[in-house]
Amino acid sequence: MTDAIAQLIARAGEQLGAKAVIADPRDIEPWVTDWRGRVHGATRAIFAPASTEDVATVVKLAAEHRVPLVPQGGNTGMSAGATPPADGSAILLSMRRMNRIRSIGAQDRLAVAEAGVVLATLHDAAHEIGMRFPLTLGARGSCTIGGLTSTNAGGTQVLKFGTMRSLVAGLEAVLPDGSIHNGLSGLKKDNRGYSIDQLLIGAEGTLGVVTAVALRLVPAVAARAVAWAGVESPASALDLLRFIEARTGTVEGFELVPHDSLNLVLKHVPGTRAPLGKAHPWHVLVEAATADPQHDILGELETLLGAALDQGIITDAVIASSEVQADAFWKLRDSISEAERAEGQTLAHDISVAVADMPRFLVDASGEVERAFPGVVASGFGHLGDGNIHFHVRAGSHAAPDWYEREGAEITRFVDALVTAAGGSISAEHGIGQLKRAEFARLADPARVHALRAIKQALDPLGIMNPGKLVP
Amino acid sequence: MTDAIAQLIARAGEQLGAKAVIADPRDIEPWVTDWRGRVHGATRAIFAPASTEDVATVVKLAAEHRVPLVPQGGNTGMSAGATPPADGSAILLSMRRMNRIRSIGAQDRLAVAEAGVVLATLHDAAHEIGMRFPLTLGARGSCTIGGLTSTNAGGTQVLKFGTMRSLVAGLEAVLPDGSIHNGLSGLKKDNRGYSIDQLLIGAEGTLGVVTAVALRLVPAVAARAVAWAGVESPASALDLLRFIEARTGTVEGFELVPHDSLNLVLKHVPGTRAPLGKAHPWHVLVEAATADPQHDILGELETLLGAALDQGIITDAVIASSEVQADAFWKLRDSISEAERAEGQTLAHDISVAVADMPRFLVDASGEVERAFPGVVASGFGHLGDGNIHFHVRAGSHAAPDWYEREGAEITRFVDALVTAAGGSISAEHGIGQLKRAEFARLADPARVHALRAIKQALDPLGIMNPGKLVP
Repeated sequence: MTDAIAQLIARAGEQLGAKAVIADPRDIEPWVTDWRGRVHGATRAIFAPASTEDVATVVKLAAEHRVPLVPQGGNTGMSAGATPPADGSAILLSMRRMNRIRSIGAQDRLAVAEAGVVLATLHDAAHEIGMRFPLTLGARGSCTIGGLTSTNAGGTQVLKFGTMRSLVAGLEAVLPDGSIHNGLSGLKKDNRGYSIDQLLIGAEGTLGVVTAVALRLVPAVAARAVAWAGVESPASALDLLRFIEARTGTVEGFELVPHDSLNLVLKHVPGTRAPLGKAHPWHVLVEAATADPQHDILGELETLLGAALDQGIITDAVIASSEVQADAFWKLRDSISEAERAEGQTLAHDISVAVADMPRFLVDASGEVERAFPGVVASGFGHLGDGNIHFHVRAGSHAAPDWYEREGAEITRFVDALVTAAGGSISAEHGIGQLKRAEFARLADPARVHALRAIKQALDPLGIMNPGKLVP
Repeated sequence: MTDAIAQLIARAGEQLGAKAVIADPRDIEPWVTDWRGRVHGATRAIFAPASTEDVATVVKLAAEHRVPLVPQGGNTGMSAGATPPADGSAILLSMRRMNRIRSIGAQDRLAVAEAGVVLATLHDAAHEIGMRFPLTLGARGSCTIGGLTSTNAGGTQVLKFGTMRSLVAGLEAVLPDGSIHNGLSGLKKDNRGYSIDQLLIGAEGTLGVVTAVALRLVPAVAARAVAWAGVESPASALDLLRFIEARTGTVEGFELVPHDSLNLVLKHVPGTRAPLGKAHPWHVLVEAATADPQHDILGELETLLGAALDQGIITDAVIASSEVQADAFWKLRDSISEAERAEGQTLAHDISVAVADMPRFLVDASGEVERAFPGVVASGFGHLGDGNIHFHVRAGSHAAPDWYEREGAEITRFVDALVTAAGGSISAEHGIGQLKRAEFARLADPARVHALRAIKQALDPLGIMNPGKLVP
């Protein structure tokens, strides 16, 4: 094995040039641990091709030498899908040098971005032409288009615009045999058989390497309105969403925040303050936006929240009076994970159930977890309108320092079983990667596992594309 | 083979009941020829299961006896994908008895319809709850949800709502090994590996049998405005679309109609009349719609067309003053194929190129075809905003009665080569089925063919699901 890797590294250097092969351990080190710092991998080299043809060359060489490749973008994944195995048996394939926006246009509302383009860079490029790429998430300054596509990333605007799956108009990829799939033609309609594009979205690099993506753009935001509302329960929060959605199509973000999450943020994150005067058991952050400068989005949201207050759906609400205040509201939401880490050990679960079922699931599951594991605090926050909650379980104040290691897996199995029994998903947006693979194998429908394995085996018979990830 | 089929029919009768096995040749005959009457197949029996479990039983039996199944919905496909082979070696699997709408709701904006539900029935059911399923096409009174899903159908509202691929929230299917894939959970976010749902959309029954589909609904139309405009060229027509799209999001339909197509309709279809006083080389039908009763959709479209006229983008326009007149405008568009058939022999091509490229492609390709095959008339009409044109070549008035049989294949090869050279698709919305399989094999990218074959072989190793269709 070692010889094969050494030979592969040498041949890649010959064919791609020295710049494309990173072998200095100091340059490798920052990229072999996952973003959360949980999984530590190793690799003898990072290949960093600068073109699709070079990626094809790398994949053919890897196939020839039977050395697996682990594709990586910004290394911001939540399930260690881009972290190489610890035994050094694979080569890390960094896509960051492929960072060109090949084209971007307001008329056809499309951008073609290479895999290594950072999300924030695409945001800026779209903004410059009066357009917008409407997917965004916390890691926007580091995560790449290839990684977002390969993990079918979500984020905070999914409610209106969907996940990456909805925003990808086509893609280019190198398949495991080194052939290049070109789906960048920009065809809006094309019924020539199975969608290879859709198959590669969310495949976590196990069926090939995404090299470039055609992405849908929407008109730039002319104005937004951000509100913070207090509600009695998650059910009331969902009622509020339905109430607003029946009256306007402008809601883009709808985030549920429980009382105790807000309190942790106020306690641990400097410069934060509660938007409402009184305490409420649950909160909702609502963001509405419009591309039409004539549209009085602030007035519209104010009227709707007033009506919701009159009808008893919410107990209080405030609309941000400035962009600074709007950002402050979002900061409360975005700081929850950070505040929880500051408070103590936290076990995160990225789960989904059907939207209508989430309010009851959230209340019931929190109770069941807290009863089954006395001392822990269970709560959920996040994308209620997508049925996707980050269900976190925190160690109680008396927990042992090794609570996470000792009890984490058991609690996660408990939560995942509840989710599965409710017909939900144990991975709403973070993917399977390495971290959720055992749970996926344990709980997945056998028909699904069989189909995934058959497809993986069919397209990657040598097992060189990110083995040990995703497929149970 | 014959024995295997007889055994399969007997066992299906035992296990599913007599009602599920149709063996009378008079009952079989209407279903073994494709909708256009071009391809004549044969089968010893039609199986008509009434439940997903019964479909699973049929598929397991078919696998056991190695007898292929040809799934069929309303038999309205354009590429003979649901027509059995002429040698009687396959059993037709009719999904029409699975015709229940399992659930439909305005709050979650979802309908779960079984494969055999007729599109018009779903339209009515959505209408009853103040909602709408926004995909529609000519065969709406016969085509079924399963067929629409398996062919990734398009139609006239794709511009705003996309094809079936965009409207399917999840699906249930029986895979070739008889296992049941359940994707009906209604999860908006689920990142547990490759999307089996997306793989089955547009797979034409070659990877399994779609048994039920969760479909996205949108609010019902409160008002629509339909206009007919004259333009100088397809380029002007696209300019008009861009002009309108930059100012409103209400356009749902945008259909290009050439002068000579309109003339044929006026000549052959009783009760039709030209919307505009003078002749124009090209026409556009524009439909705008809103779900908001306060929105003055008629006034908005009138203002926009007035501005487009002032700017010289269009040469004339009229807005339908009543629903009757709006329907009359649509009838002009919808009658083109019928009028062409009345005029003489016509060769149809359902093609797409990138939207921005279509105006020039249409003009250039028409010229090239007419030069290469003297006497023919080439013209394109349809979904300009999707880059999808029905490019029809008509026999000239002096053509021989067997022109279609003698010259059709050669002309189609010529057109398909032009489309392929332009980076387009030889099947924008009609699929590959049997009729386009040879051309697909001839022109497809080898990487794509390899991937399709590998997936087919992986999921259907016995080749029992609609063999001889789609996959080259």
